[in-house]
Amino acid sequence: MKPAPLALTMGDPAGIGPEIVARAFLQGAVPGGGLVVGDAAVMRRAAALVAGGAELPVVTVGSVAEALCLPPQAMPVLEPGGLVPGLAELPQGRIDARCGAAAAACIRAAAALTACGEAAALVTAPIHKEALAAAGEPWPGHTELLQSEAGGMPVRMMLANDELKTVLVSIHVALRDAIAAVSREAVLETIRIAHAAAARWGTPAPRIAVAGLNPHAGEGGLFGDEEIRHIAPAIEAARAGGIDASGPHAPDTVFMRARRGEFDLVIAMYHDQGLIPVKYLGVEQGVNVTLGLPFVRTSPDHGTAFDLAGSGRADPASLIAACRMARRLSAA
Amino acid sequence: MKPAPLALTMGDPAGIGPEIVARAFLQGAVPGGGLVVGDAAVMRRAAALVAGGAELPVVTVGSVAEALCLPPQAMPVLEPGGLVPGLAELPQGRIDARCGAAAAACIRAAAALTACGEAAALVTAPIHKEALAAAGEPWPGHTELLQSEAGGMPVRMMLANDELKTVLVSIHVALRDAIAAVSREAVLETIRIAHAAAARWGTPAPRIAVAGLNPHAGEGGLFGDEEIRHIAPAIEAARAGGIDASGPHAPDTVFMRARRGEFDLVIAMYHDQGLIPVKYLGVEQGVNVTLGLPFVRTSPDHGTAFDLAGSGRADPASLIAACRMARRLSAA
Repeated sequence: MKPAPLALTMGDPAGIGPEIVARAFLQGAVPGGGLVVGDAAVMRRAAALVAGGAELPVVTVGSVAEALCLPPQAMPVLEPGGLVPGLAELPQGRIDARCGAAAAACIRAAAALTACGEAAALVTAPIHKEALAAAGEPWPGHTELLQSEAGGMPVRMMLANDELKTVLVSIHVALRDAIAAVSREAVLETIRIAHAAAARWGTPAPRIAVAGLNPHAGEGGLFGDEEIRHIAPAIEAARAGGIDASGPHAPDTVFMRARRGEFDLVIAMYHDQGLIPVKYLGVEQGVNVTLGLPFVRTSPDHGTAFDLAGSGRADPASLIAACRMARRLSAA
Repeated sequence: MKPAPLALTMGDPAGIGPEIVARAFLQGAVPGGGLVVGDAAVMRRAAALVAGGAELPVVTVGSVAEALCLPPQAMPVLEPGGLVPGLAELPQGRIDARCGAAAAACIRAAAALTACGEAAALVTAPIHKEALAAAGEPWPGHTELLQSEAGGMPVRMMLANDELKTVLVSIHVALRDAIAAVSREAVLETIRIAHAAAARWGTPAPRIAVAGLNPHAGEGGLFGDEEIRHIAPAIEAARAGGIDASGPHAPDTVFMRARRGEFDLVIAMYHDQGLIPVKYLGVEQGVNVTLGLPFVRTSPDHGTAFDLAGSGRADPASLIAACRMARRLSAA
């Protein structure tokens, strides 16, 4: 029997999502098979762009079971309800509320398929946050939307490549608000979610480094006291619960130390603290993993690249890395 | 005639500064020659630690001219006034107000020698900020102290290695205060100081990338408005003045893009934004350069490493890189 497929969303139709998804199928780089949750006409346009149409047949399916019966070279597309017609006629590279609404509908449908086990894991192509906002979606990104779909359970975003895994206390908020979000509870919850996730992937006692918030982790309170008031107490509570957590470490060296093998995971206090080092050696291998959901969800760690959309030059490497990691994590 | 020597400060006597300075001399890795501004007994202890005493004669000198007359294998030490006796008897690896005061006295004396041209450039070994504070110094680090000594002129810290140069809008302040320090004026001044410095090093029209403050550079105002209110206007003003500045760029990818050659310099909005990527591949090659002073000043980009001090295992690589960069920049 074939394994359950990966569910891939098309992402924002005006971005590079459809074409990198099509390219991953064309290259046979969706391990164990996958199906696209998206607009069939948009995916046909993408298939024509990357393969001239002939080599990548796009087949609309009504169910996951139907997708499993297709020949391996086909790209099955499942259309969620509520897509407006004419999406494939909209210009690419522009923010459009209809594109944002379509992207959100695909995420919701794909998450539902994955939550009930019909799909093995969810891999999401990039969406544009302003298009999402224009569509009236209250969520700044995938993670928050999926969290809401899962009933509001606490989730965290992990960015990972082959040499570094970093789990973020907060993500798409102004830096000012990210500082306010650093509380003992939020840090402790991040440590616990990361610990539980690592155990499920075969690292039952991960060495978790917790970064400070301020330069030099506050240097004993000289440059900020969030370490003393919030972060150190969270680490203490985690350690009391049997978790191998250490810190708060100076943010400017903790990622380098993790890269060298001193830690299995780094807890980052805000978006760019964690994403700058993961992306520094190249965005292609960076994979975004949502921890805390009842299923595995990964995504490439780049955006919609509106300037490239429709050119056929978008690189599918990070999406392919996301597919590989989704399969690996869901097989564990 | 011999070139003017580099002036090397000993750093905090309780840290690894004295021993990495001694090791640089022992390895003949102070290009063009140097003299140490420090405590002679502390430097003798360090010389004994790294060389067993015999191979690295420590010679107390009263002037730079006297240092130039010494044989090349000697390590000349110039003692500033005001050092308390017995520094070499204090335990290493501990915060001590006497050590902080001695470190500060050495920096002031070495800066004066360099400002008047007796030394070619200033290379500072690590100090401990808590020891400095314990000594009643109001400055959180070298940069602020040197700025004060230079009459309060605007300076900025640059962190650089072979592949990335980043200039910081603010340094040793709580992240909360760093956000408040992002103003149109501060960002514009940072761009101008970086532009002027690059011109002096032989890059008269540097391609300067300016990072945003917030995730995704605020994504059009969705996650913070400092980009719209302060950073973009500063870039516009710089461009109007003929500077090739661009941005605000998403912080999580701008450093990766600079590493790949798209930009010559990145302006970072706060300490860790710039230091995380420079240090990610290893602190050994990172050099701290103060821009805007009337002389060249470099330092290694690591700290006092109290846990290693006195062990003889401290790595002088970053200090040696700082000496090389000081000589290169002061020869231009």
